[in-house]
Amino acid sequence: MSGYDAVEVIRTKRDGGTLSDEAIDWVVGAYAAGDVAEEQMAALCMAILLRGMSADEVSRWTGAMLESGERVDLAGVGRPTVDKHSTGGVGDKITLPLAPLVAACGAAVPQLSGRGLGHTGGTLDKLESIPGWRATLSPADYQRQLREIGAVICAAGDNLAPADKKLYALRDVTGTVEAIPLIASSIMSKKIAEGASALVLDVKVGSGAFMKEADSARELASTMVELGESYGVTTVAMLTDMSQPLGLTAGNALEVAESVEVLAGGGPPDVVELTITLAREMLGAVGLTDRDPAEALRDGRAMDVWRAMIAAQGGDPDAPLPQAREISVVAAPASGVLRRLDAYAVGVAAWRLGAGRARKEDQVSAGAGVRMLAKVGDRVVAGEPLFELHADDGERFDRARAALEGGFDIGPAAAARHPLVLDRIGG
Amino acid sequence: MSGYDAVEVIRTKRDGGTLSDEAIDWVVGAYAAGDVAEEQMAALCMAILLRGMSADEVSRWTGAMLESGERVDLAGVGRPTVDKHSTGGVGDKITLPLAPLVAACGAAVPQLSGRGLGHTGGTLDKLESIPGWRATLSPADYQRQLREIGAVICAAGDNLAPADKKLYALRDVTGTVEAIPLIASSIMSKKIAEGASALVLDVKVGSGAFMKEADSARELASTMVELGESYGVTTVAMLTDMSQPLGLTAGNALEVAESVEVLAGGGPPDVVELTITLAREMLGAVGLTDRDPAEALRDGRAMDVWRAMIAAQGGDPDAPLPQAREISVVAAPASGVLRRLDAYAVGVAAWRLGAGRARKEDQVSAGAGVRMLAKVGDRVVAGEPLFELHADDGERFDRARAALEGGFDIGPAAAARHPLVLDRIGG
Repeated sequence: MSGYDAVEVIRTKRDGGTLSDEAIDWVVGAYAAGDVAEEQMAALCMAILLRGMSADEVSRWTGAMLESGERVDLAGVGRPTVDKHSTGGVGDKITLPLAPLVAACGAAVPQLSGRGLGHTGGTLDKLESIPGWRATLSPADYQRQLREIGAVICAAGDNLAPADKKLYALRDVTGTVEAIPLIASSIMSKKIAEGASALVLDVKVGSGAFMKEADSARELASTMVELGESYGVTTVAMLTDMSQPLGLTAGNALEVAESVEVLAGGGPPDVVELTITLAREMLGAVGLTDRDPAEALRDGRAMDVWRAMIAAQGGDPDAPLPQAREISVVAAPASGVLRRLDAYAVGVAAWRLGAGRARKEDQVSAGAGVRMLAKVGDRVVAGEPLFELHADDGERFDRARAALEGGFDIGPAAAARHPLVLDRIGG
Repeated sequence: MSGYDAVEVIRTKRDGGTLSDEAIDWVVGAYAAGDVAEEQMAALCMAILLRGMSADEVSRWTGAMLESGERVDLAGVGRPTVDKHSTGGVGDKITLPLAPLVAACGAAVPQLSGRGLGHTGGTLDKLESIPGWRATLSPADYQRQLREIGAVICAAGDNLAPADKKLYALRDVTGTVEAIPLIASSIMSKKIAEGASALVLDVKVGSGAFMKEADSARELASTMVELGESYGVTTVAMLTDMSQPLGLTAGNALEVAESVEVLAGGGPPDVVELTITLAREMLGAVGLTDRDPAEALRDGRAMDVWRAMIAAQGGDPDAPLPQAREISVVAAPASGVLRRLDAYAVGVAAWRLGAGRARKEDQVSAGAGVRMLAKVGDRVVAGEPLFELHADDGERFDRARAALEGGFDIGPAAAARHPLVLDRIGG
């Protein structure tokens, strides 16, 4: 035995102390191995949430989670590797156009992604609305696709920071998700294990985001940038607005369709702006500062990579996307300017329509979601459609409408537009 | 479903909020029923430990634990019922002479007791060193013994605050034992369920006690007195010294023998003083202020009740008590006055000799323990015995001696004696 004891480790943090490197290595490893019980880790997570961790503790904790699995070696890919991670928001489909765009500009994007829980959607859920597309790849196929196409979005294997996988499920049911050290180490242990040489973090701020306030978002961003750099990954974080949804759709197939519009050179201006901004950051982080992602969108190179990427994972990029069986319209109750469009309200509405899941084992509806016909600053006319609600089951409309109630304001004067990119940290 | 959600309850307390009566009733009941998971309750306990609970929350929490089982009805006993609870200390055998003494004075003492864990012994462990004595009684035998003899010390049934039983085991492994609201509600839910109309609490303070400082002991005492009164139980708390052990023995059979000396009119002065003090409080709490417990010790009435109480539970009060196979002496390293005798050190030594258990499933040794040949203020002579160590296995002596090292001071001048009773709260 190691000489460590779970209760002693819990007490140390509970009483405001600092966990030694050895104690962190032991408790994370023993938890992953099942030698520290779920209830012990739950108590420790609550103590960490309320007492905090120092930069050194967070770094070691992240390292211990990395050590619980393997760090992927991407040396054989033959291109600079760079990934993006978003902390999650409503209508955040950016990964879909971004990964092929960055690949079209010469980098490789090894995106191991997850499914959605709660009011924010998951990238894999969105892609799974494409007929035939599969989220699982063998390690060999993964490496080949990265080498040949330059972009992979797929499910993480069981050996990617397995301690984090177990810990995340525990935090989810014990009210200990909202701890910056635990959020940062969870994200970064997975992203560092993924093996990319650089990482751009899109830290969302606002009602539809995990972080409602800029201060806590900035703290999370700084912690993650430090962690990335301490493990040799060039890391930059962007703070971006999530007070209103991104784009005009929230839902799985709806967002895929909007992403394809962007790849075709169109799409909502905010989605295009953020896609290009993040692409420039990713290319810059691996030294490809001479590439122009706007050009690669315009000339169809990004679309070519998208089609190859989807096809390589069994998807048919030309197949019609699933549609919801029923559509219900929410009309604007007044004429004027849309002054506020609450991202959380739209996220909850989409979730209630069937786009998201309440429990891990739930199925999502491919076609369900919300289409917005106006964004903040747009003029609306009383009685004209403001939202389209899409669902497979018309009984869902009432609860979705209830979620949207109070979720927007229409006023006489124009609202000040929030900038989309609020801050940049690191680099 | 109740509309409550464990994560919401945890978050409320985590963020410093107050739990509603309904939320407390739900979470305690659902935990007892297995619908709130161990890891969720562990996170909640840590949040309670770090955020605290209001007096109303503690009262409701206690009530919810009471509701998880049955409250015993002692109306048929035909005497005023009063119990005592000690928060636990080294050499604390007071319950053994106290229960028969108070019964001899006309009250009934329904003591449902527990086993020891760690460095403090358990009352049942001590009594089980008496040949034939059994801790388990049927409810009918329990009531009859109370009615006819006036004193019962036995194991609590599974239906006495079962939520507390489950919760205590959880707190023990999750570093959440040391929360005053949880300690107070744990003790009081069991004591209120026991059905006595009055309760005297012996809250220990000092190195050998759970509460090392008078301030936290006083807070615990006040919380428990308030809880008792709010559930209609006349409650008084005494703060008593546990900086040195009580009496001259720590160990199971050793403490029974010392208790019998007290019942025979002898015994160490501190054990006699505390037994009589607590007996007066217990008798006063049920209005029997005219009874003289000192007289009942002198004239053998308390001893008669002891013998009847032991015999009623199968024990032979005349049988020789088990003795340890080996005895080793620790000599005084210097001559002078014993200025300090650390209760915790003696408790750990007794535990290591085999008197206590490290895990619930461990067996204890009946004969093992420490006999002290001096207490604070006594003169000692270099080379003369200071402690006798009793163990069934001579290999235990080295670790017991190590525990005693640094656990006492011998100096030239007399030490100031601590008063045994430090404070009295309630009543």
